[in-house]
Amino acid sequence: MLIVQKYGGTSVGGLDRIENVANRVAKAKFKGNDVVVVVSAMSGETNKLIEYAHHFSKNPSKREMDILLSSGERVTASLLAIALQEMGIGAVAMTGRQAGIQTNSIHTYARIESINTEAMKTEISKGNIIIIAGFQGINKEGSVTTLGRGGSDLSAVAIAGALEADACEIYSDVDGVYTTDPRIEPKAKKLDFISYEEMLELSSLGAKVLQSRSVELAKKMGVKIVAKSSFNDNEGTTIAEENEVMEEVLVSGIALDKNQARVSLREVSDRPGVAAEVFTKLAEAQINVDMIIQNASTDGTTNLGFTVPQSELESARELISAFSHDIGSVDFDENICKVSVVGVGMRSHSGIASSAFSAMAEASINIEMISTSEIKVSMIVDEKFGELAVRVLHEAYQLDR
Amino acid sequence: MLIVQKYGGTSVGGLDRIENVANRVAKAKFKGNDVVVVVSAMSGETNKLIEYAHHFSKNPSKREMDILLSSGERVTASLLAIALQEMGIGAVAMTGRQAGIQTNSIHTYARIESINTEAMKTEISKGNIIIIAGFQGINKEGSVTTLGRGGSDLSAVAIAGALEADACEIYSDVDGVYTTDPRIEPKAKKLDFISYEEMLELSSLGAKVLQSRSVELAKKMGVKIVAKSSFNDNEGTTIAEENEVMEEVLVSGIALDKNQARVSLREVSDRPGVAAEVFTKLAEAQINVDMIIQNASTDGTTNLGFTVPQSELESARELISAFSHDIGSVDFDENICKVSVVGVGMRSHSGIASSAFSAMAEASINIEMISTSEIKVSMIVDEKFGELAVRVLHEAYQLDR
Repeated sequence: MLIVQKYGGTSVGGLDRIENVANRVAKAKFKGNDVVVVVSAMSGETNKLIEYAHHFSKNPSKREMDILLSSGERVTASLLAIALQEMGIGAVAMTGRQAGIQTNSIHTYARIESINTEAMKTEISKGNIIIIAGFQGINKEGSVTTLGRGGSDLSAVAIAGALEADACEIYSDVDGVYTTDPRIEPKAKKLDFISYEEMLELSSLGAKVLQSRSVELAKKMGVKIVAKSSFNDNEGTTIAEENEVMEEVLVSGIALDKNQARVSLREVSDRPGVAAEVFTKLAEAQINVDMIIQNASTDGTTNLGFTVPQSELESARELISAFSHDIGSVDFDENICKVSVVGVGMRSHSGIASSAFSAMAEASINIEMISTSEIKVSMIVDEKFGELAVRVLHEAYQLDR
Repeated sequence: MLIVQKYGGTSVGGLDRIENVANRVAKAKFKGNDVVVVVSAMSGETNKLIEYAHHFSKNPSKREMDILLSSGERVTASLLAIALQEMGIGAVAMTGRQAGIQTNSIHTYARIESINTEAMKTEISKGNIIIIAGFQGINKEGSVTTLGRGGSDLSAVAIAGALEADACEIYSDVDGVYTTDPRIEPKAKKLDFISYEEMLELSSLGAKVLQSRSVELAKKMGVKIVAKSSFNDNEGTTIAEENEVMEEVLVSGIALDKNQARVSLREVSDRPGVAAEVFTKLAEAQINVDMIIQNASTDGTTNLGFTVPQSELESARELISAFSHDIGSVDFDENICKVSVVGVGMRSHSGIASSAFSAMAEASINIEMISTSEIKVSMIVDEKFGELAVRVLHEAYQLDR
């Protein structure tokens, strides 16, 4: 088997932990596998470098940031290779460039365009373990690029796809994907299996096991991911295409997102296109609008509500003031949160949404906004009821069984 | 003018110091110069990374060490570029690879083979300041290489040579090159000018302003070096070819090297080739033999004395034990030091050596070994007389005038 393993910042967050990772990698090799490892920077390193840069500039040049930030992963990769060599195991460290990772030129948020696997395949054929500095590549001009936060996940998935690896194991300090955040609901259970689609909904809603771009890429390339902890030998969660096994599962998990704010526009004049104009401006300002609700009112005006990330509320506020002549009143509310029920079973089973609403009503939690997709029901509720809503829904779908 | 500036680890050893360097670089640019900057890692960084590697292995793989160690200079280069950009000055950071530095494949001690100046020339023509991560390049296979301790000096000189720069300024925490170590002789004076040859003798003898390989390279490429402090605006010392101005100077400086040990082999059997065999073995073990003295004795045996760096004495001791049947007795002495008088004037002026010996005799310092070259007289004396010898010779050649 050819296995790609990725170890995150916490897993390599110190010399003893790198030693621990070396032992895990060696074990996989001794079982007869070919192993390619992708590593993050030691935890805290990237933030330290960003702080350094911010000492000089609030908005440092992205090209230079990429040279700066790519250094952390190189340190971990070379140290891990040295640790393995000391165990008598053939290992070779590679930078993103040396591993053949070609990206576009969008510095600090580059996209992988292609991977030249030649150098990697040569080392694999020699029986060597390859340790690759994650999160980085080069563009066509040869400049160093990085892939954005959590980019090492992306490196691992892309490499697994390019090498047609049998598995892509993503190691962190978490055992896998849970039915909900165990800090909110202690009865939360680890999932053995989750589909790409569900994982995408859960990760964009705040379950931080996997960067969502890497889940998208895994889906696209058909790479099976196993999310595991590097601190124990628990089974982990497999993320892959839906299959027969999943038919019985209706709901996989409950996610809570506290980073939302609601904007309510009341008495919006019925002049055609006002709503469209508002959302166009928001999009131009790169403000992420999530849920939208529009109600026609009786007096010839409409009410328009939507949510944005809290960090973007200030920009939204400024932008909307330009529309004051078309809008009766505007109301901003940061004290809300979004609770989502996610499950591929919703596609084929009706009634999932209604049982969510019933459970919320029974617990006397008022639902302020609702949006649904094929595999998700999201509800905006008062922030103070967020954790309660999660527990109520977790119970309603019997996710602790 | 096109100026190459190199800032060492102490000069960039903190965020405030990098800010200070940015101001100095900006000043050179505002004077109308094109400026290319080469930087070292922040002081302490390289040692920290070496310690990390030694946590895993006493003898870490050199290929991986190069990926590890090259990261420190990248951090400084990108931070300095960001600092300059924040001042509104066009600046671009480059790794060794991006600057076109091609080396051979001797990892951790690579030699620069060629520099492709295309990328640098493009940026210069745009009016940009280039900030280059020193100490590093890549080999023909694209692997990262480093140039050994002090390698950033080498990067700077090679780049200055390749770009045909008008000057190569090497900044450290020292004002320039002194007639001797001011901690030993407070009357030591800074030299305005010193020849490559003299500098080579002084640096290999312990004056740590410039790495000696970079002086050799500067001589070969005809690059004029100015050694300066980044903490003040003093003039510094120019290192270049001897010229007419220098005719009057007989002696430029006095160097003290306390890192020497003496090996004395007594009653070496007169069998031909014993001495040759000893030195061949020492060379094979990469032990640097410095001074050698052989005396024929009356009883058909010879006495053989030589010096090695203290750090290599243990290896030398082991090696020599293999010759016990050919040698009467062996004596090791770490309590010695080497005092050297350096000056190109010796070439044309006789009597320099003899006045050294007279001065030492007057001060009752016993000279145990002597070696001379065209521009140097070195003497081995008891370690406890080292500083005194320096002061006596400094006075004898009136270097404080």
